[in-house]
Amino acid sequence: MSEGGEENREAERNARAVLTRIVEPGDETVGRWLRQTTPAQLVQSLFGERDMPTGVSQEKFEGLRLRTARVDVNQPAADLEAVAALGGRFVCPGDDEWPQQLDDLGDGRPLGLWVRGSANLRMWALRSVAVVGARACTEYGAHLAATLGADLADGGWTVVSGAAYGVDGAAHRGALSAEGSTVAVMASGVDYAYPRGHTDLIRRLAEQGLVVAELPPGDHPTRSRFILRNRVIAALTRGTVVVEAELRSGSLVTARRATELGRFTMGMPGPVTSGLSAGVHQLLRGEAVVVTNAAEVIELVGSIGDLAPAQRGPVLSRDLLDPVATRVLEAVPARGGADSRRLARDSGTAEEVAQGKLFELQSLGFVQRCGAVWELARRPTAVASSGRDGP
Amino acid sequence: MSEGGEENREAERNARAVLTRIVEPGDETVGRWLRQTTPAQLVQSLFGERDMPTGVSQEKFEGLRLRTARVDVNQPAADLEAVAALGGRFVCPGDDEWPQQLDDLGDGRPLGLWVRGSANLRMWALRSVAVVGARACTEYGAHLAATLGADLADGGWTVVSGAAYGVDGAAHRGALSAEGSTVAVMASGVDYAYPRGHTDLIRRLAEQGLVVAELPPGDHPTRSRFILRNRVIAALTRGTVVVEAELRSGSLVTARRATELGRFTMGMPGPVTSGLSAGVHQLLRGEAVVVTNAAEVIELVGSIGDLAPAQRGPVLSRDLLDPVATRVLEAVPARGGADSRRLARDSGTAEEVAQGKLFELQSLGFVQRCGAVWELARRPTAVASSGRDGP
Repeated sequence: MSEGGEENREAERNARAVLTRIVEPGDETVGRWLRQTTPAQLVQSLFGERDMPTGVSQEKFEGLRLRTARVDVNQPAADLEAVAALGGRFVCPGDDEWPQQLDDLGDGRPLGLWVRGSANLRMWALRSVAVVGARACTEYGAHLAATLGADLADGGWTVVSGAAYGVDGAAHRGALSAEGSTVAVMASGVDYAYPRGHTDLIRRLAEQGLVVAELPPGDHPTRSRFILRNRVIAALTRGTVVVEAELRSGSLVTARRATELGRFTMGMPGPVTSGLSAGVHQLLRGEAVVVTNAAEVIELVGSIGDLAPAQRGPVLSRDLLDPVATRVLEAVPARGGADSRRLARDSGTAEEVAQGKLFELQSLGFVQRCGAVWELARRPTAVASSGRDGP
Repeated sequence: MSEGGEENREAERNARAVLTRIVEPGDETVGRWLRQTTPAQLVQSLFGERDMPTGVSQEKFEGLRLRTARVDVNQPAADLEAVAALGGRFVCPGDDEWPQQLDDLGDGRPLGLWVRGSANLRMWALRSVAVVGARACTEYGAHLAATLGADLADGGWTVVSGAAYGVDGAAHRGALSAEGSTVAVMASGVDYAYPRGHTDLIRRLAEQGLVVAELPPGDHPTRSRFILRNRVIAALTRGTVVVEAELRSGSLVTARRATELGRFTMGMPGPVTSGLSAGVHQLLRGEAVVVTNAAEVIELVGSIGDLAPAQRGPVLSRDLLDPVATRVLEAVPARGGADSRRLARDSGTAEEVAQGKLFELQSLGFVQRCGAVWELARRPTAVASSGRDGP
C-alpha cells in the first residue's frame, strides 16, 4: 500500500467509500482538493466536524455539503457490508488490486471502485481490451461483437465493456461463452442491474467475471454518469475497439478518451451505406486503426509490453505470488495441462477461486489456456508481423 | 515540346509508335536504353539498318529483333491512320497533351499513349481520381462505384478506371451518367473492346470520354498487360480509391503503385464478413485512408495543389489558352451560366468540342459546373477542414 500508513488505511477506505455517495464520478475539482487534504479530512469537513479545507471554492463546497446532508454517517460501513454480502469489495488507489493505469485519469481518477466478482481486477485489466458500440446495433454488429469477445477471451485477453444492450452485451456474452475473463464497468451501483433486461447477464458477469462501478451500491445511472463511466473503460484497457456506432455516439467518446490516454483506438468497419458504421468510419478517418478480427486487435495491443507482460514471459518472480496463486501454479503439470476443475482439486482450492487465479497467472505470463486446458506458458517464439508494411 | 527539335518530332513519334508494337508495356530495360539513344535510332537498329546501340544486352536485343521481324516497317503509319480514323492520336512524352505525371514511372513510363476521344488527356488528368476494384463485385460494390463515379464527376473530377466488369464499369457509367469526364486505360489496343460485353460502354467512353492504351491498335490484353496497365492508372491520377477487392487482387497492386508514386491511396470499407472487402481492409490497415463518399475523396486529393490548380483558381493566363478554348470561355456569361449547347452555339463550336474544352477550362480553374450549367469559377472561400483532427 503506497498511500498512507496501515493504520490510516481503513479510515481512508471508509472516507473514499462515503465520498462515492457524495461526489459525482470524475469530479476533477475534488480530485484536486485530494492532492492537498486526505479523504478522511475532507469527509470530516463535509460532515461539519472540521473546518473547510483551505483553497477550496465555497460554492462548490456548499453544494457537496447539501449532498452530504442526505448521507448517513454510518453509510460507508453499510455500503461495504452490502457489497461484501454480494462477494464484493471497495478497491482504492494504493490497494494491491488497484489498476494503476487509472491514475492516468489524473484528478479525474475514480475515488475508488466497487467491485463484484472473485478475480483480481488489476491482474485481469493488465491484458484487457474494451469492446464498445451501439445499443441499437444491427445483426452484423452483434455478430462482430460476440465473435470478437469470444476470440479475445480465447486469446487470453479480458473483454471490458459497459453491460449495455447491443454491442456491449454481445461482447460480454462472447467472452463468457468462451469461458474467458470479462469486466463490466457500470454507470450505476454494482448491485443495480441496468438495463433491467440485462439482469441475468449482469449476475453472470458478477459470478464468472467482474462487475465494477464508481458509484456506491444501489445508485442509479444518469446520462452524465454513462459518459463519465466511459473514461474508466478507456483508461482501464490497453485499447478500445468500436464495433458499430452512429455519428455522435457515446462509443466515440470512449474511443477518443482512449486516444487521449495513449491507448490504442480501433474500429471494425462496416458498409458505408450503414448509419451505424458512420461513426466508426469517422473514427477510422482520424485516430483509429482498422481491425477486422481479434487477431488483429491482439497484434496491435500486444505490441507494447507495458501492460501486457505475458507476451514476453513472466514479469513477477514466483516468490511474489500470493499463496493461493502459488498453489494453483504448482498444480499445473509440467507437460500437457489440466482443466480448472482438476487444478482446483490438486491445489485444494474452490474451482471459481482457482479459475480467477489462473487468469491472473495468465496475465502475469505463467500459464496459458488452450480451450478448457491450462498449461505452463512457453516463451513466444517470434513477434507476429505487424501487417502494416507497405507492398 | 521539350524533347527533340520540331523536325525530328515526327520521326520520334513514328519510332515510338512502332516500338509500342515491339516492346511490352513498362519495359524498364528499353526505357533505360532510351536514355542513351533516340527512339528512331533504336528502331533503325532493330530493323537492322544500324548497329546495335552500345551498352545493350545482346540477349534482350535479339529477343526484340524476333518481335520486330513480325512488324511491317510501314506499320506505324498504318496504326496512326487507323487510330486517326477512330478520332484518335498517339501522344508522346514531350507533347502538349502528354500527362507529365507519367514521367514519375521513370524508365517504366509508357513509350507513348494511344488515345481515342476529343478531350485533352493532360487537362483531364490534372484533376483525376482512379476508381478500381473487383470484377466480380457485389451489388454493394457496384452501388458504391457508380455513386462515387457520378459524385466525383459532379465535383469536377475525372474518373479513371480500366473498363473491366464490376467496379470499373460501374465507376465509368456513374461518371457518364453525370455527364462528367472519364478515362478508360486499356490493357489492349484502344480499338479492341475488352471485355467483349463492354463493347458498347467502351464505345461510349471513346465518344464522351477518353480511351487510352499503351498497346497499339488491334493488340489484345494478356495477364501481365493487365498488371502493367495498373501502373498507368496509378501514375495518371491524384489518388486511387479501391471499392471492393479480395486479398491478392489486382486492384491492390494499383493501390500500392499509387502509394509508391506518392499518390493518395484510399479504400471504401465494407462488411468485415465479406471476402470482397478483405483486400480493402488489408490496405486500410496499411497505407490507405478510409473514405466513405466522393466528398471525402475530393477533400483528400484536392488538399495538395500540384496537380489540381483549379482548387486555387486559374493557373494559366488566358493568353495561353488555345483559340477554341478562348472562344468557349468568352461565351460563358459573367453572371449565371449556360449549358454546353448554348456555349457551343455562342462560340461557334461543335457541341462535343465545346464540352471537352469546358472540362479543360474546369481543370484549369476558369469555369465550374453546376448540373448542366457552366459558369465562371469563383475563388474558393475556405479550405474544408481535414476531418482528421483529434477529438
